[in-house]
This record gives sequence, structure tokens and C-alpha cells, in this order.
Amino acid sequence: MKVTLAQINPQPGNLDANCRMITEIIKSSAAAGSDLVVFPELSVTGYPPLDLLTYSRFIDDTAAAVQKIALECTGTAAIIGAPSPNTKKRGKPLLNSAILMQNGRIDTIFNKALLPTYDVFDEYRYFEPSSSFQTAIVNGMKIAVTICEDMWDDQPFLHGKEHRSIYAISPMEEIKKLEPELIINISASPFAHNRIETRETVFCTKAKKYQIPVVMVNQTGANSDLIFDGGSLIIDRAGEIVARLPLFRESVTTYDLKKTITTGAKIPPLPGKMELIYDALTLGISDYIKKTGQKRVVIGLSGGIDSAVVAALAAQAIGSENVTGILMPSRYSSAHSVTDAEELASNLGIQRITIGIELPVAGFEKILEPVFTGTRPDVTEENIQARIRALILMAYANKFSAIVLNTSNKSEAATGYGTLYGDMAGALSVLGDLYKTEVYELAAYINRERTLIPQSSITKAPSAELKPDQHDTDSLPPYDTLDKILFRYVDLQQDRETIISAGFDEETVKRVIRLIDLSEYKRFQAPPALRVSAKAFGNGRRIPLVSAHRI
Amino acid sequence: MKVTLAQINPQPGNLDANCRMITEIIKSSAAAGSDLVVFPELSVTGYPPLDLLTYSRFIDDTAAAVQKIALECTGTAAIIGAPSPNTKKRGKPLLNSAILMQNGRIDTIFNKALLPTYDVFDEYRYFEPSSSFQTAIVNGMKIAVTICEDMWDDQPFLHGKEHRSIYAISPMEEIKKLEPELIINISASPFAHNRIETRETVFCTKAKKYQIPVVMVNQTGANSDLIFDGGSLIIDRAGEIVARLPLFRESVTTYDLKKTITTGAKIPPLPGKMELIYDALTLGISDYIKKTGQKRVVIGLSGGIDSAVVAALAAQAIGSENVTGILMPSRYSSAHSVTDAEELASNLGIQRITIGIELPVAGFEKILEPVFTGTRPDVTEENIQARIRALILMAYANKFSAIVLNTSNKSEAATGYGTLYGDMAGALSVLGDLYKTEVYELAAYINRERTLIPQSSITKAPSAELKPDQHDTDSLPPYDTLDKILFRYVDLQQDRETIISAGFDEETVKRVIRLIDLSEYKRFQAPPALRVSAKAFGNGRRIPLVSAHRI
Repeated sequence: MKVTLAQINPQPGNLDANCRMITEIIKSSAAAGSDLVVFPELSVTGYPPLDLLTYSRFIDDTAAAVQKIALECTGTAAIIGAPSPNTKKRGKPLLNSAILMQNGRIDTIFNKALLPTYDVFDEYRYFEPSSSFQTAIVNGMKIAVTICEDMWDDQPFLHGKEHRSIYAISPMEEIKKLEPELIINISASPFAHNRIETRETVFCTKAKKYQIPVVMVNQTGANSDLIFDGGSLIIDRAGEIVARLPLFRESVTTYDLKKTITTGAKIPPLPGKMELIYDALTLGISDYIKKTGQKRVVIGLSGGIDSAVVAALAAQAIGSENVTGILMPSRYSSAHSVTDAEELASNLGIQRITIGIELPVAGFEKILEPVFTGTRPDVTEENIQARIRALILMAYANKFSAIVLNTSNKSEAATGYGTLYGDMAGALSVLGDLYKTEVYELAAYINRERTLIPQSSITKAPSAELKPDQHDTDSLPPYDTLDKILFRYVDLQQDRETIISAGFDEETVKRVIRLIDLSEYKRFQAPPALRVSAKAFGNGRRIPLVSAHRI
Repeated sequence: MKVTLAQINPQPGNLDANCRMITEIIKSSAAAGSDLVVFPELSVTGYPPLDLLTYSRFIDDTAAAVQKIALECTGTAAIIGAPSPNTKKRGKPLLNSAILMQNGRIDTIFNKALLPTYDVFDEYRYFEPSSSFQTAIVNGMKIAVTICEDMWDDQPFLHGKEHRSIYAISPMEEIKKLEPELIINISASPFAHNRIETRETVFCTKAKKYQIPVVMVNQTGANSDLIFDGGSLIIDRAGEIVARLPLFRESVTTYDLKKTITTGAKIPPLPGKMELIYDALTLGISDYIKKTGQKRVVIGLSGGIDSAVVAALAAQAIGSENVTGILMPSRYSSAHSVTDAEELASNLGIQRITIGIELPVAGFEKILEPVFTGTRPDVTEENIQARIRALILMAYANKFSAIVLNTSNKSEAATGYGTLYGDMAGALSVLGDLYKTEVYELAAYINRERTLIPQSSITKAPSAELKPDQHDTDSLPPYDTLDKILFRYVDLQQDRETIISAGFDEETVKRVIRLIDLSEYKRFQAPPALRVSAKAFGNGRRIPLVSAHRI
């Protein structure tokens, strides 16, 4: 049997384009002699479709698109992902389905049993879980189809000190009784730098445990915060990967299944963490620009490492000709800030504009003077500068039809070390899921062949340059220490005592946790941040704004 | 049996304070001869606790708080709401429980079967649904305890043209087999102006259908966007309400159950829509201020109706001495804008400051001139003014420890008729769930006894005053028409064709829907908005930012 893995990049809600793409791939694969073409989870709607699924018009249009694809599905079988109606009288109205079509019609509908509803996932919001399992015959072969999370039933879910499965049933335990010869899994499994290996382990373990080969097809592309890495797989019954599609790009590849499985193959090792993150972030930027119908970005260049890394990623993602960097020096800007930013722009070949902020600063000082009489300078004056810069970036973006890329990192987002409507502004946060120490690693990766980011931007002490001789360490612990505490509290959800007992200074830990908890209101209004870790700020982490609890 | 309905206002995450409050109420009720004290759903943690439930430390602390309350629970029984561990080996680690305690220990744990996971609710994110039901004996009476949504199983859920129950089981159908004499329901049922009546109908219908009296205790207070109206009930077996606790405030009231049920009572009708909304919004403001540890607010006063209504609500909510209004006239401000705002401030007795924005406007014009050479004035220049005003408000808030109240309404939020980081800024959106036409109704309600909001603010044509002779109708259809289209698309989730076929102009409908769809990215960064309708923007409505679909 010839199986085509169609690792595509559908756009949420773009039924026409997704349907056209799927139909074309089915036709060309049929022409090339494929017996089965496999598309990702919810490939007709794109993943995640979110509340579009609550619009009956969208559901009707999706059903029509599925029927249209089925009619065109001749010469090969195909499995596409789409919502389908729950025919039972009670329960959520939709099922998350894998639809097998052959001979110009829908053959079998497989429904998802395990609905991830944690972190960034909300599937039970839309779908009824299925509890029935079946097989189908394609080209004489008995296959069973699972959908993404269906294979993750025994993935331990950390709850305190206890590891437990959060699902009451195991789809594969049911499916094995049906004795299929092949398991197909259609996925929309979002990227996190340490999740690809986990995912491969989960799938290989299942193949080996049940002694059945597995074909897994994952979505690629980025949909605002979520990046899908692709990396579709064929795994033999011994649990060895025998084929892996490329990461972070579309690929439609046909395999002779028997030959691929029996021959085996030397699969290259996965790229390192920074290569993965670099590829993920450039895809995240370019897909956001493309899918929102934009073309150009503008970035505030401070001379520091964060904005330099964002500019380098943007230049790679959408071409340096579409990137504008704006330098906005003030009385507190050091000379090297300006020269570092200039050198960066020149290294990257991006447009560079300099707009000093002193005139509006003076304007605000003057009009606020009567109101501020008798007060001392504090964070207010620093925020004014940051907000003036955001205003300039937004004005440029408005005037020249660009979007502002935000340059805040995860350490800043965590501690609230940033100004709302100031440096926290932007349409998309590129580094919002990277701690400062990871930004340094990424800068080193970007500079691996030649110096794009000036060495001085990397080596100098980080500073917001909003008052004389300011350094980040005036307000925060050194990033080496800070990031370790942040990772434990935010990513691992450890509590105060656990972190302190791991050897961190008690006062520092308490102070850092207090900063995190007190800045929920800022993060609430932050732009979407490209997710590269297993626990990003945003939709995957929901803390009450009026909470009094300090964990 | 004497039953105390403890309609309290717990703070999410504030275990110490919630535990103390619950214990004190149990003690005082016991002293007053109560046999059973009933608290709302998740009263120990406050509702909604969101991802605090994923921190093991928080779960441990909650369990300890529950034990502590149980130890003190003597002289009366009590039912409190708290998460409890799922003792099964698989499935989500927690259950959403009603814990009956008496004689200083936990007597029976009732678990929620129906977990709302739609609109603003995400309960399946945290809890395993229960499918077992039981009764307990309190003071010789056989009671069954349900939790909020458990009573809503047959509430029709609109999906397209089909009304269906989204739940596979009916808890009351199971419970009736156990023949309880009384149903207790503990709720955390958030306010929407048209939901109180629905809620009462749901509960009365159940009481009548199963011929069992019902005691429902609901949370009150506001937790950022969600407002809880209280309105706890006693319903007799005929489905008649015989007692209702007050709306929008805490109340701990003891009833002789038999006497209350047999005597019946004349329950006053529910207040009208605008009275409900007025009370809800003032509670929303005051609780946000209180629970975030703030004291003062600042509001940009434009002379228009929106900011006037917000100022009036804030003055009522936290006292006029804690409200500052800032007038920020520009070259485009009409004379009446200034006089109307001055009159408003004087009517309300709030502090008034005037800060002209011309100096920073000139500063930005000057520094942007070299970059903008050859371009025409457009929305950029309008946005600059709006952002300068936000900067001034934030500077005042930073300097004087206040928070900015946002004054955008739902019509503006829907159409994107507002400037991100400009008039869309603020810690809390007060009117973000009220269409412009509803803001007029609310203004009339506020002025019902004496003129607080100047007539001129109400009668003049709405204008952003960001360029000469600007009116909202230059960019938008008249609000009378616009709001009807918005309500159908946003609240009722009708599609284009349905709205057009209801008699609206096709081009207008298409244009309005396009505006809504294109401004998702703005709303993504909007502040939390006090929810007063059944479909507010924010967490209850999740549309992909990169969606291409036009419903």
C-alpha cells in the first residue's frame, strides 16, 4: 500500500482555501499511484478553529466542504480531519472526527475519544468525547484511525507529587481488540522545544506495545501563538521511526508502506533546542504576517539583545526589505545603544530610522508639571518614555501599513518588568516565551556563522535606559538566578517552599513570586506570544486577576 | 429544620479570609439555632479559581482549610463548596464538590456531574465529572446536594436551528430515585441581565417536576469580569419561590424551612434591566478595586456620554472622593465638550483636572515630520491623540496610585472603533458589554431622580473629536441600526444571510461583520470587561486571530 503523508498548513476558518488544497493533493496523489492520503486533525477547518465551531453557518459550510472533497476523492482513499455532527440526542453537538473517504464518498467516520482540555487546549468546549471504536478496510488493509490525543492516554499528568492519567479510558486498549494491521493518527500537535521527543516516544511506545505500525500526520504552520512543527512519522511495529517528514514546513510525501517498514531507515537526530526555536519563531512570524494579510513589520531597536534578536528573526522570516527598525534615543540612551542598533540594522540590511523622543518627553513634562508639583520622579517618568516609544512605533505602523513586533521576553513578562502600552505593545510577541538567558542562547545561535547581532549588544549589562545608569539588576535578581526561579514557578508550577529548599535564597524567591503574581493584570493585556515551551503565558495559563493567593 | 443561606462574596485564592468568613458564619448560625448552613459553590477557593487549581500547593492548602472548617463545624451542619481529590486511579485529579460537615467532621461529599465548559466556563479543564449520586441525613431530614450546573441538564443549548441538551445525563433523574425530601443546590452562577429570570425558571421547574423543595445558594460579588448577583432562593414543591435573598450583596439569612415553605410568601418582582445593570456595574467596580488592593480611579472625561456614565458609576461604587476625571482637550475639542465634562464633575462631586494635549501633539508632529513627509493625514494622526490621552491617564494613575477605568462600549469594541493603547486602555472596562444604545438607557436610569449626567452629553451627536467636525456616523451606521446588527451577530451568533433576511441592508450588514471580524486583534489586548450580557467579548468568545472566515 502506498500512503501519502500530507503535512499541510491550513488556515483556521479558511474553508475554501483548505478545501482546495486538500482536493488538489488528493488528485495529484491519486495520479501518482497513492492508495491512501492522510491529512492532519481538523484539516478542513484548520486548528484551532475555536468558537467558529459554535456558529451554525460555519458548521454547515464545513459539512459542505467535506462533501465536496468526498465527491472528488476517487482513485485513492483519503483521511481528512473535520468536525462531524453528534447523532445522539444529548451531549455536545459535534464530534472531532477523522473521515475516511474512498470511491467518491464518505466511507467511515472515526471519532476522537480523548479531548485535551488543559493548557492551551479547550476541546471539550466544543466536542463530545466518543467511546466507540472501529476499523475500516483500505486497499485490502484493516486500519484503525485515532486522533491526536487518543494516543496520549497514559502520558503521565503531573499533579503535585502524583503522576496520573487524566483520562478514564485507553483508546488503544479498545482498538487492539479489533486487530487492525495499521494505526493511523491524525494530529494537530503544537510545538514546544522539548515536546517533539516526548511525542515521538509516546507514539513509538504505543507501536511497540501493541506491535502495530503507526502512521502519524501532524499539521504544520503557525496560527497566532501556536506553532505546529509537522514532523509526521511512520513507525514500525518494533517502535522504530522509519520515516519522518521535515519540521516546520509543508510536505506531501508518498511511501510504499511495506517497503518503508521492512527496510527501516536511518532517521537523522532531531535538531538542537536553539535550532528548533529559531525555525519555530521564524515560521511563527511569517505565518502571522501572511495569514493576517500583512506584509511589513516595524521594531523598536534599543541596541539591546532582545530587539536585536527579534529583528534578526523577522529579517529571516519575511525578508529584510520588509523590516523597519526605529531607534528612539532619549537623554538616557548611551552612545553604544545607538551605534549597536545601527550596526545591527546594517548587518541585517533592514531599513533604519532614528526618531529622538526628547520633544514629546518635554511636552509631557510641561503639561504634567502643574499636576505633578511636589511629587518625586518615580516609575511614572520611566513609563512615559516607554509609552512615547510605543506611540511612535504604532504611528509608523498605522501610516505605512506595518505591524509592530513586540520584543519583550518571558523574564520581563513574568516579573512585570515592562510598561503596559509601552514596551509591552505590539501585534505579536516574538520572545514572550523565552527567558532572558534563552534569548542569549538564541543570539549565539543566530551569530553562529557570522556576526549579525553586534557583540556589544550581547555582552553589555542589560538596561532599560529609562533613567541614569539604570541596570536590570537594580530591580531584578541576576537573570541566571531569576530565570531558574521563574522556570520552577511558572513552568514546573513548584511552590515557594520547594524552590527555596532547592537552594535559592528565601527573600529572593518570595520577591520574585510576588512580582509574578502582581503582574497578572499586565499580562492580561499582552499581545499573543509565540509558544515554544510547554508552559507559555497566555491562554495556556489562566490565573484570576483578583486572586490573593501566593503559591 | 432551620436552614441558613450564606450568600457570601469569597475572593479567589484568598483561602485564609474565605475560611475565616465561613467559620465565623457557621459559629454565629449555630449560636442562633440553625441546623444547616449552606455556602456557595467552591466557596473555600472563591469562583472561578482557574489555574490555581493546577498548583498542588493550592490544593493542599485548600484541603487543610476544609479540614479546619470541619473541626469547627459543631452545633450545626454546614455545606461548603471546595475541590476534593478524585480517588479513582484515572481521570482528572479533582472533583468539584459540596462537602457536608457535621459534628466536627466531614460527613458526606457530593460531587458535580455536569461541568459547564462553554462561554466563560472551563470546568472540565480541572474536574472529572461525577456519575454517582447519594443522599445524607441532616437533622433527621434526607437531603440531596447538587452543584450549580447539575440542575441545568435540560436547558436547551442553541446549536444552529437545533435546541439540544449538551449533557448526556440528568442528575435529577438519578437523584429522584433516592427520594430525598430536600434538594440543596450550591451555585456560582454569574450575572447576565436576562439570566436571573432564566435561572429562577430552571430551578422552579425542577422543584415542580420532581415535587421536591429546593434551596439554592449563589455566590455574590465580582471577580474581574464576572459579577455574581446572589439572589439565593427557597422554592417549594409546587415550584413557587418562597424566599429570595437580596441581589448584589452578601446576606446570611436563616429560615425555618417548614414554615417558609408552607406559609409561602409574596416575593417582589425582579428589578428592571437598567437597575440590574447599574447595581451589577457598581459592584463590579467596587469589588475590582477592593480585591486588587486599590483605592482610587482616574477617568478621561471627554464630555461624551460613555465617560460620563463611567464616572457616575465609579462615584457611586467607591465614593466621589476616590474618583478623578481628567479633561484633555485638543484643537478639535468643541467648547461644549469641556463645559459638559466640567458640569458632570461638579454634579458628581469628583476631582477634576484639565490637561491640554497640544504640546505633546506638536512634539510628535515635529519628530514624525521627516518620516511622514509626502503622506496624507489619516487615522494615524487620530490615534496619536487617543494614545497621548491614554499616556496622560496612565501617568496620573502611576503617580497617584490609581487605576484607569476604561470607557469604551460594546459597539466600539465590536467594530474596532477605538484606538489600541489609546481609548481602549485601562485596567477595567466598565461598559465593554453594553451597546451604545444601552449606554443611553443606563444614562437615563442614572438621571432618573436628578440630572447627574448633563443633558447635552446625552443629546449631542456622538463624536470622537479627533478631527474637524467628526461624527461616529462618518465611520459607522447609526447606533440604532448598528447595535441591532451587532446583537444578532455577536450575541445571537446569527450569520450574514439570516441578518440580511431580517430586513437589514445587505451592504451595511457585510460592512459591520467585516469590521467585527477584522478587529479581533484589538479585542485580544483589551482590558477585562464587566460582563452583564449572556455573550460578552473576552474569555467567553474565542475567535482565532488568524481566521479567514466571515460568518
